[in-house]
Amino acid sequence: MTHQEFYQKRIEAQLESILPASNQQPKALHKAMRYSVLGGGKRVRPLLVYATGEALGIATELLDKPALAIELVHAYSLVHDDLPCMDDDILRRGKATTHIAYDEATAVLAGDALQTLAFEILSPPLAGICAENQLKILNILTTSSGINGMVKGQAIDLAAVGEKLTEAQLETMHKYKTGALISASVLMASYCCDSLSGNNPPKTKGENEPVEMDIHKKRTQLSAYAQAIGLAFQVRDDILDIQSDTETLGKQQGADIAAGKPTYPSIMGMTAAKEKLFQLHKKAVDSLQDFGEEAFLLREIAEFIVKRIA
Amino acid sequence: MTHQEFYQKRIEAQLESILPASNQQPKALHKAMRYSVLGGGKRVRPLLVYATGEALGIATELLDKPALAIELVHAYSLVHDDLPCMDDDILRRGKATTHIAYDEATAVLAGDALQTLAFEILSPPLAGICAENQLKILNILTTSSGINGMVKGQAIDLAAVGEKLTEAQLETMHKYKTGALISASVLMASYCCDSLSGNNPPKTKGENEPVEMDIHKKRTQLSAYAQAIGLAFQVRDDILDIQSDTETLGKQQGADIAAGKPTYPSIMGMTAAKEKLFQLHKKAVDSLQDFGEEAFLLREIAEFIVKRIA
Repeated sequence: MTHQEFYQKRIEAQLESILPASNQQPKALHKAMRYSVLGGGKRVRPLLVYATGEALGIATELLDKPALAIELVHAYSLVHDDLPCMDDDILRRGKATTHIAYDEATAVLAGDALQTLAFEILSPPLAGICAENQLKILNILTTSSGINGMVKGQAIDLAAVGEKLTEAQLETMHKYKTGALISASVLMASYCCDSLSGNNPPKTKGENEPVEMDIHKKRTQLSAYAQAIGLAFQVRDDILDIQSDTETLGKQQGADIAAGKPTYPSIMGMTAAKEKLFQLHKKAVDSLQDFGEEAFLLREIAEFIVKRIA
Repeated sequence: MTHQEFYQKRIEAQLESILPASNQQPKALHKAMRYSVLGGGKRVRPLLVYATGEALGIATELLDKPALAIELVHAYSLVHDDLPCMDDDILRRGKATTHIAYDEATAVLAGDALQTLAFEILSPPLAGICAENQLKILNILTTSSGINGMVKGQAIDLAAVGEKLTEAQLETMHKYKTGALISASVLMASYCCDSLSGNNPPKTKGENEPVEMDIHKKRTQLSAYAQAIGLAFQVRDDILDIQSDTETLGKQQGADIAAGKPTYPSIMGMTAAKEKLFQLHKKAVDSLQDFGEEAFLLREIAEFIVKRIA
């Protein structure tokens, strides 16, 4: 089992146990929630939470709830984005979308419930995380999902269908639509500790002892990393929408183009889009240059994001 | 200006300022959010937050954020409940529903954004409320809105259309669908203070000095009050659905009956429903018997709920 697979198994088991049982009433809602979240998905955001935790020396069990919460927010957004009145998609992660597998009302409600659940699991006392940091984690997740984050991106996206966007406008849209949650994954992890100043206070410089970076500097570098891979994720998505096929993708190939949505290849050409992807990967890796081996998984995720085929 | 009107004006002004400006991008989303929340609504839940705060001697400004948050959750639920795939309502608070005034995609997104905003405004540090209590407030709001609260009620409601329910089943549905948020209003207010034990620790019994109730006992009584008025609110709603008219109600009269939804009058008859309403009002008022003048507004709200005509 690779390093990534270890965490993927962990998040799958956590999701499985946090979602309401499908044999309990109201069953249709519970089934639709489980269907929307389980059995598929790359779990990029939870992986980023765990990988950032590793880079900062945070115990894995302190990272579980934020990892779960951000995946639930992501899952809710997919269920609602796929609705007939939104992107009207019928295929997601190789399966029928939730409103196809169930019905539209259940899909709306399941999405609503997944959003609430994300914040609900972050609200009871969390062992090893002080209340102030827990509120900060909630603040990061709510701001990155709402009108100054993901929802803003989705609204810009809705308004942009059929419009001609510049590269800068496209970038703004993605900064909110996908970038905000990816940055949140990294930032939330950095608050999974017991003091507001972070779990790695700067050491006093002893003789021959390197000064450890303080947590603020680490957060700045981690944010730069997250911004680069967030955008890279989207550029890769746009490239795959053209170059991959429906079976590999698990969702309709060419759907963005067909819907008249602006994409990186359509705005700047495929060659320039691939070059942009290369530069973003470099930027992400460079951002972590002050980190050592402990950032191994963050670097691996960056590579996965630019090379993935689905 | 009556006591109620004072707080209604206060919450209107607070809602006005917390919602995103309609002249800022993305405008359609912001406009739809404002449209869904402002200019209408009885603001029963915020009123309960303020009235409970009065009964417990809590400063008004500590109650504003929870009052706002619960109204935003309520507003989001109305926007989504009105969608074509749900109740398919075209009239709400005397105006076109959000998906009619805008479009379905914008309504789904505005509802999502209102839910996130509710939790977002409770996540930065709140002056006068300790972090532990703030998390408790968030915990009350999330649990009462999600799969063990409002959303559960809505799912039961969806499954109940056209079914024959017993009075007990109807009561369970309403306990979640409307009761949970009404109880949450009261409970959240009781945590708007600086220590986990509540702001009114029990006094030592001096000579000739009455022992003040401790906060736990107060919460128990306030919860009993909230459960009674929560159910009363629904019984009154069902009576009005039959006896009022569309113009007075601001929503389609007879909509529940037309949709084949079980209601109190349809299950137990109009006379028994009115008797039930009377008993619930009595129970609510009796629950507050250990409170004095400071619970004036809570009693007034109970009376308003059973006598309201819209």
